[in-house]
Amino acid sequence: MEDRKARASAWFRDLRDRICAAFEEIEAELDPGQPHADLPPGKFERKKWNRQDEAADAGANPELGGGGEMGILREGRVFEKVGVNISTVHGHFSPQFAKEIPGADASDGAFWASGISLVAHMRSPKVPAVHMNTRMIVTGRSWFGGGSDLNPMVEVAQDTADFHQAFKAALDPYDPAYYPRFKAWCDDYFFIKHRGEARGVGGVFYDYLDSGDWERDFNLTRDVGAAFLAIYPELVRRHMQEPWSEAEREWQLVKRGRYAEFNLVYDRGTRFGLMTGGNPEAVLMSLPPEAKWP
Amino acid sequence: MEDRKARASAWFRDLRDRICAAFEEIEAELDPGQPHADLPPGKFERKKWNRQDEAADAGANPELGGGGEMGILREGRVFEKVGVNISTVHGHFSPQFAKEIPGADASDGAFWASGISLVAHMRSPKVPAVHMNTRMIVTGRSWFGGGSDLNPMVEVAQDTADFHQAFKAALDPYDPAYYPRFKAWCDDYFFIKHRGEARGVGGVFYDYLDSGDWERDFNLTRDVGAAFLAIYPELVRRHMQEPWSEAEREWQLVKRGRYAEFNLVYDRGTRFGLMTGGNPEAVLMSLPPEAKWP
Repeated sequence: MEDRKARASAWFRDLRDRICAAFEEIEAELDPGQPHADLPPGKFERKKWNRQDEAADAGANPELGGGGEMGILREGRVFEKVGVNISTVHGHFSPQFAKEIPGADASDGAFWASGISLVAHMRSPKVPAVHMNTRMIVTGRSWFGGGSDLNPMVEVAQDTADFHQAFKAALDPYDPAYYPRFKAWCDDYFFIKHRGEARGVGGVFYDYLDSGDWERDFNLTRDVGAAFLAIYPELVRRHMQEPWSEAEREWQLVKRGRYAEFNLVYDRGTRFGLMTGGNPEAVLMSLPPEAKWP
Repeated sequence: MEDRKARASAWFRDLRDRICAAFEEIEAELDPGQPHADLPPGKFERKKWNRQDEAADAGANPELGGGGEMGILREGRVFEKVGVNISTVHGHFSPQFAKEIPGADASDGAFWASGISLVAHMRSPKVPAVHMNTRMIVTGRSWFGGGSDLNPMVEVAQDTADFHQAFKAALDPYDPAYYPRFKAWCDDYFFIKHRGEARGVGGVFYDYLDSGDWERDFNLTRDVGAAFLAIYPELVRRHMQEPWSEAEREWQLVKRGRYAEFNLVYDRGTRFGLMTGGNPEAVLMSLPPEAKWP
């Protein structure tokens, strides 16, 4: 298991590096004369953090350990704000929380978790925003989870089809039942109940993936990350040179307000992070750089 | 009791009218040449809503009845966005929720509630934002609740002192223990736990006020509303003609992001409204017109 943990963490770090490099490459490709083309190409700033320091600051469980690295690209030419976190943490769940987590009874609440999470908010309302995360969790059991969903301001049917197809192609070799199930799970999860509307146009979402073959499940999780890395930059390049109007930008800011509503009211990861004394800067990295509730 | 309900609802409506008139008066007082002075003075738009319609739309409890009126002033000269709701609703709490509400066992879950709630977000970062609400609730028991808190972007000690003094002066004639208790309650309630910081500079917050003398408690609630009406317009006039910098405006937008975090993550009224199928337009009227998470 120690070898598996090390391989999973190394993959999340490697995927982070490849995504950051791909996004920085895109930053250099904006045509001269486009809005924000006069800015220097955006670069990721990285900041390591240590769970023990943070937990002690927040007066939380001092048994928590591990850490991570936040990466943030701010005020780029194409990317307005991207947050990419990788982290590898371990500790003990509270007895109450442990009841909700598979296998945590067998581990006396002990857990280990490693993963990557990413949210990108774009300058242009023509370029969809996106979220992706994948993770490995170990209690008395171990499993993978993750997913990705696309958040266009106005849906473009071909983009939606291509985004979904990328994940379908990644998942079908493992089990043709996965993609329809993970797609439905995503639609169900990223739904803003109080508005009766979807956050975006979906994608895939999965959790508790433990087929009994760890290598297979790890490969699947790598393939989900690789599918994201293949399709999302393609969608960005497809739309980043298109003109947009002030009204489209306004609508983007309104849609981002709803994105913030979802993350603060419903998102399990965000609420878990806030309620357990996580570093608010890292937990809330997903929030949009600018949003409106007119 | 029916007479009391009618008098309380009438007061909330009357207070609403007086506040709206006071704010519209301020809109006409901005000096020429100030930012936004070229805009027409802001006016409240009012929109009645009916709880039965809304509840049916949301598939919620069809036994809910009553309604209210949203008032919103958008893109004024001094006020960037003000939401003022009054409502008088009745129905039955779910058995689970009824357990948390005083007196709801004796009424078999039946409740009646009337109140006013207001949030003002200002153009100028020099003018504090504000929240105020007061309400009367009837189950097997009846009580009043409410409060007001001030949200300056940078604290001005004299404003804070005057705001607190206004409520102290309103409450002291009833019981000198009220003000310190209600002030502490406010500080405790309007605290953004995940950031370890207060939302604003406080004010007063009270709930379950039932001294056994309804007339006295009603008068107190009217005096809290009147105190708000006396002090807040004074603070607006004190600062509305002051110049401000782009950096101050940016900080205002960041503080507003934290205000949105508080309302979406912690505020009981907001979360209750969202979870029970309330009209999201009315429930989320408190959210800032524009906010940043840079």
